[in-house]
Amino acid sequence: MTEDLKPTYVEAGGFDRDMNYVPDRITRGARRPEHGPDEGELWPVEPGRYRLVAAKACPWANRSIIVRGLLGLEDVISLGTPGPTHDKRSWTFDLDPGGKDPVLGIERLQEAYFARFPDYPRGITVPAMVEVESGKLVTNDFPWITHDLFFEWREHHRPDAPDLWPADRREEMEEVMQRVFTEVNNGVYRCGFAGDQESYEAAYDRLFEALDWLEERLATRRYLMGETVTEADVRLFTTLVRFDAVYHGHFKCNRNKLTEMPNLWGYARDLYSIPEFGDTIDFDQIKAHYYVVHSDINPTGVVPKGPDESLWNTPHDRDRL
Amino acid sequence: MTEDLKPTYVEAGGFDRDMNYVPDRITRGARRPEHGPDEGELWPVEPGRYRLVAAKACPWANRSIIVRGLLGLEDVISLGTPGPTHDKRSWTFDLDPGGKDPVLGIERLQEAYFARFPDYPRGITVPAMVEVESGKLVTNDFPWITHDLFFEWREHHRPDAPDLWPADRREEMEEVMQRVFTEVNNGVYRCGFAGDQESYEAAYDRLFEALDWLEERLATRRYLMGETVTEADVRLFTTLVRFDAVYHGHFKCNRNKLTEMPNLWGYARDLYSIPEFGDTIDFDQIKAHYYVVHSDINPTGVVPKGPDESLWNTPHDRDRL
Repeated sequence: MTEDLKPTYVEAGGFDRDMNYVPDRITRGARRPEHGPDEGELWPVEPGRYRLVAAKACPWANRSIIVRGLLGLEDVISLGTPGPTHDKRSWTFDLDPGGKDPVLGIERLQEAYFARFPDYPRGITVPAMVEVESGKLVTNDFPWITHDLFFEWREHHRPDAPDLWPADRREEMEEVMQRVFTEVNNGVYRCGFAGDQESYEAAYDRLFEALDWLEERLATRRYLMGETVTEADVRLFTTLVRFDAVYHGHFKCNRNKLTEMPNLWGYARDLYSIPEFGDTIDFDQIKAHYYVVHSDINPTGVVPKGPDESLWNTPHDRDRL
Repeated sequence: MTEDLKPTYVEAGGFDRDMNYVPDRITRGARRPEHGPDEGELWPVEPGRYRLVAAKACPWANRSIIVRGLLGLEDVISLGTPGPTHDKRSWTFDLDPGGKDPVLGIERLQEAYFARFPDYPRGITVPAMVEVESGKLVTNDFPWITHDLFFEWREHHRPDAPDLWPADRREEMEEVMQRVFTEVNNGVYRCGFAGDQESYEAAYDRLFEALDWLEERLATRRYLMGETVTEADVRLFTTLVRFDAVYHGHFKCNRNKLTEMPNLWGYARDLYSIPEFGDTIDFDQIKAHYYVVHSDINPTGVVPKGPDESLWNTPHDRDRL
């Protein structure tokens, strides 16, 4: 996302995320999926037709890269990766040869948004699904992008793809994911973008209350929903992996580091050791993104050299659960 | 000090501390002490004549408060304590009734500097020794203030005062203190005030190299110079106690927290458990000072709520050494 570009502040000084996304869906057959927004156009599942644009720096985009990998969709949905920093206008493909995405041929993700909506008024966010041939944005509605990669692209999954949305746990999973979203994924931003001391302290308390809940939950469960990895783990992981590198210092989420919460820290390393998780993590890009883009919080633009990343490869001992 | 007010940057983007202080000394008899600057006036040791002005927030001032306590000089040198934050002009006595120091009757430490030097051109720094009757600054030369509290005020020390400058270790102690000063006490500021990425990274490497050296040194020694507390410990402690609360995040000294270096962390808690050390520490004042005064680094002025201070009272197990 570009929460970074245009955070909106509510009156009390708190942080309010703009959740107004393009609600189109990519679906099997011309039917509207059971879950999700009931507006927006429907696009057909079709190998090679779409390109996922997802900056490795961004936690919301990171989810989609992980899910694409877990499900083995690399050959049917290609991946474009904007660099970690961007200007007021848009994420750019500055890491690609010639500064252009090699498939879409554009310099800025903005171009795909404008190809679809010439007057697109909101933030240019990742992840974004783009139709390759027309170069038009299809959707940037991040929770439904990963949801649909699982439910709609099933016939293209690799044979041993994990069941990221186990039907018998969906109800509880939705509750867990909702709490993780409002309290943790968004909670760190609520701390960092707090406009005053009072709203910051309230945000800090709220965040660590949720982390304490998760720490306890993970004492007896290897993964959030039990014995197998689900979408809920993907969603929590992308925040946890950024915690000590960014949120602890930059967003002042500093009651403790992730490394000081044994269950969460073991859990995060357990997930990190899975290549489809760990291989998507680029700490340099992650740190550059936050510390450079948020010049209102870090005016010098200096990016911290720590913490020691090698700790992520230490034994986690979670297979005892 | 007010390094905070007027850091000077050298050309390469590094941080250069202004070490130009008022070099007067308070001495026994009208003789110039063997060590220290060979300029400046000499003032006589005299109980009740001077007031030590030292903000609890400031690490350089904190040293003098600790040494005064260890030596039992509370009844002969009174203590004035400016609040943690200050404006461009000076430290203020905003925590005192009516916003005035109850003994000196001034609102700003600047007044004592100007009483002595009407055109004083440099930063208004703590610690400062002020003559009570005239209200004039005597000296702000921090390393010699604590040195002289030990060597010159000896006849007023409490009977069981520790030997903070053991003669048989003085040579090695000077070397250790010099390295601690340039690499650690000043090293954290060099990280925080680095003007560009390159000088920051060089400063970070230099700081942690020194901390690694100290971590190793303290593996076999309970205190820096061996079995007893010395001035060298006072000087290291005031930086360590601020490390996780301020330097780790605010100054980006984030390879690891102090709590992640077992010997240094045990050592710091060992000292903290000594009342003359621990009772001088006010984490709220410390955090408020850095996070509010350095608006160029922290424009929002929001002060982090963490880290958890109760860890400072956990067992340190250093008496095994």
